Amino acid sequence: MNKHIKRLLNKKLAFVGSVSSELSGKPYVKAMLVSRREGNNVFYFDSNNGSVRVSQWKENPNACVYFIGKPIYRGVMLSGTIEIINDMEVKKKHWTRSMKAIYKGGVNDPDYCILKFTATSGRYYCMYKSEDFEL
Amino acid sequence: MNKHIKRLLNKKLAFVGSVSSELSGKPYVKAMLVSRREGNNVFYFDSNNGSVRVSQWKENPNACVYFIGKPIYRGVMLSGTIEIINDMEVKKKHWTRSMKAIYKGGVNDPDYCILKFTATSGRYYCMYKSEDFEL
Repeated sequence: MNKHIKRLLNKKLAFVGSVSSELSGKPYVKAMLVSRREGNNVFYFDSNNGSVRVSQWKENPNACVYFIGKPIYRGVMLSGTIEIINDMEVKKKHWTRSMKAIYKGGVNDPDYCILKFTATSGRYYCMYKSEDFEL
Repeated sequence: MNKHIKRLLNKKLAFVGSVSSELSGKPYVKAMLVSRREGNNVFYFDSNNGSVRVSQWKENPNACVYFIGKPIYRGVMLSGTIEIINDMEVKKKHWTRSMKAIYKGGVNDPDYCILKFTATSGRYYCMYKSEDFEL
């Protein structure tokens, strides 16, 4: 894994993809902030049980996480799956006071959930070329 | 359509989503520069006939285009379909000399293609809330 990929995988801002549950699925993309990471292949995000995308991942756990660099022609896409975590121990570990502004009920807010993305493959894009890399 | 949405739809940098053709599709996301736009719902991108994503859109034309604003909690996602254009008249209209660096064969390069994204719906995200909007 080259230094550019390592740098991209440490970005805070991620573009997270999901697929709708129709037979011929539709792609969805949203910018999300990485709340925690483990190694190069596990990324956590804070989310909402009532959201469209969480319902999509319940049907089809496939997901991707894209990080963009500067200059903008450099990027990394990780492919993998998302697990929806509602375990209170994990939630308490993730919780920070500032999150109260988003989840009114605090760490016990039933809408608060954690997304755990585990990547199984990675592809690096640079100047109109791309290559797979090991995680 | 509010002024924030209008501003987002004029961004040069887009995050474009596709779905792989497996039964339970995988989402793909990549940053692309808008090469031309028509109104608020048609966006063109330069691409490659030999790319993974073009083959995905041939199987499943569903696509999304996401634009991010500043501050980063503001974004727009358009849902629609992608048409792959290889018509020489259209290619000549799009072609600029600097593209020679990417497509070695010039406008006649068989790998050069144009993606025409037509949006059918739009959703605006702002501060953990979201709403649909008319295109």
